[in-house]
Amino acid sequence: PQAGYIIPILYSYFRSSCSWRVRIALALKNIDYETVAVNLTKDGGQQFSEEFQALNPMKQVPALKIDGITISQSLAIIEYLEETRPTPRLLPQDPKKRAQVRMVSDLIASGIQPLQNLSVLKQVGQENQLTWAQQAITSGFNALEQTLQSTAGRFCVGDEVSPSLGRLRFKVDLTPYPTISRINKSLLALEAFHVSHPCRQPDTPPELRA
Amino acid sequence: PQAGYIIPILYSYFRSSCSWRVRIALALKNIDYETVAVNLTKDGGQQFSEEFQALNPMKQVPALKIDGITISQSLAIIEYLEETRPTPRLLPQDPKKRAQVRMVSDLIASGIQPLQNLSVLKQVGQENQLTWAQQAITSGFNALEQTLQSTAGRFCVGDEVSPSLGRLRFKVDLTPYPTISRINKSLLALEAFHVSHPCRQPDTPPELRA
Repeated sequence: PQAGYIIPILYSYFRSSCSWRVRIALALKNIDYETVAVNLTKDGGQQFSEEFQALNPMKQVPALKIDGITISQSLAIIEYLEETRPTPRLLPQDPKKRAQVRMVSDLIASGIQPLQNLSVLKQVGQENQLTWAQQAITSGFNALEQTLQSTAGRFCVGDEVSPSLGRLRFKVDLTPYPTISRINKSLLALEAFHVSHPCRQPDTPPELRA
Repeated sequence: PQAGYIIPILYSYFRSSCSWRVRIALALKNIDYETVAVNLTKDGGQQFSEEFQALNPMKQVPALKIDGITISQSLAIIEYLEETRPTPRLLPQDPKKRAQVRMVSDLIASGIQPLQNLSVLKQVGQENQLTWAQQAITSGFNALEQTLQSTAGRFCVGDEVSPSLGRLRFKVDLTPYPTISRINKSLLALEAFHVSHPCRQPDTPPELRA
């Protein structure tokens, strides 16, 4: 880093899948950063503090302070990292393969995750949460499995890694999703997924550490 | 176009905001295409047909057949168009501004639209639909308005147009959102937004045409 370079700050919550996605990208690119933990359940949700809302009006993690700007939305952050720190690459070079990576990422980030985030689950109500979340995941995973069957190699698109798949928070039987299971296993074996894992963050509570 | 070039096919539904977003991008880039209408309510939803599911396992519009591949997810489609047909540009040149465009687009595509799509509204149930959709929109718009106040010029990010803002299907009072309203008005005045408008598509029913 050059003199005067300010180390990026990641606003993150250890168990947020979208935060994990960005932590994976930062790890794959060997970018040093500091974590500011935003606990989504403590104090009624620290993302609702005035200070954090000024950083990200969506009141969601992650947000990344980098190069003098603050970016929210995990995929926008990753595209910025890719454009400003191109090596190692997170997207393939071939435009058609890049389109497939983005299609898979958007399927997850727009088609699955928004339906199971905390504010939506709260609106759905405690007694319906599990059914709701499982319905969102199975319907998304059915589509994802079918898509990956035509795009995947060792990872989601061919043999190059890209940070799209997230963590499974709700108990969902993975038997019907052999491609998703296989890729998930390959990914979790990588160092960048290991160090960025929810059970290994500065804000991971002791009882959940591993 | 070169000899042997096959004209792209857009699978679209006239009133789908995500389809409109892609139609805007195609119009801004002067890309000729054919429309195949997928009626999301007729025949129990034509997106559920076996034929369409093979094209897009998510059973959603839009999907674009182009250059020998089929891409779904509106933002992935737009990034592909930008990479393969770079002029006129849809994203600014400056990486920080590009990040802001993607942040705003993702805020809408992941933070607002998934919560008001047909399959989710069906799950929410008829009597709760309007409240649910309005809650998703106002909470997203509060964040969007605040974000745009620091990024917008004539359009969402500076003075260059990018296809992010969609249409308002549910009655939401726009008075608290002066920036969103102003940009929406500027966009609707553009030729590319006019020709791609839901009231002007091959599958727009006569009574909704304008």
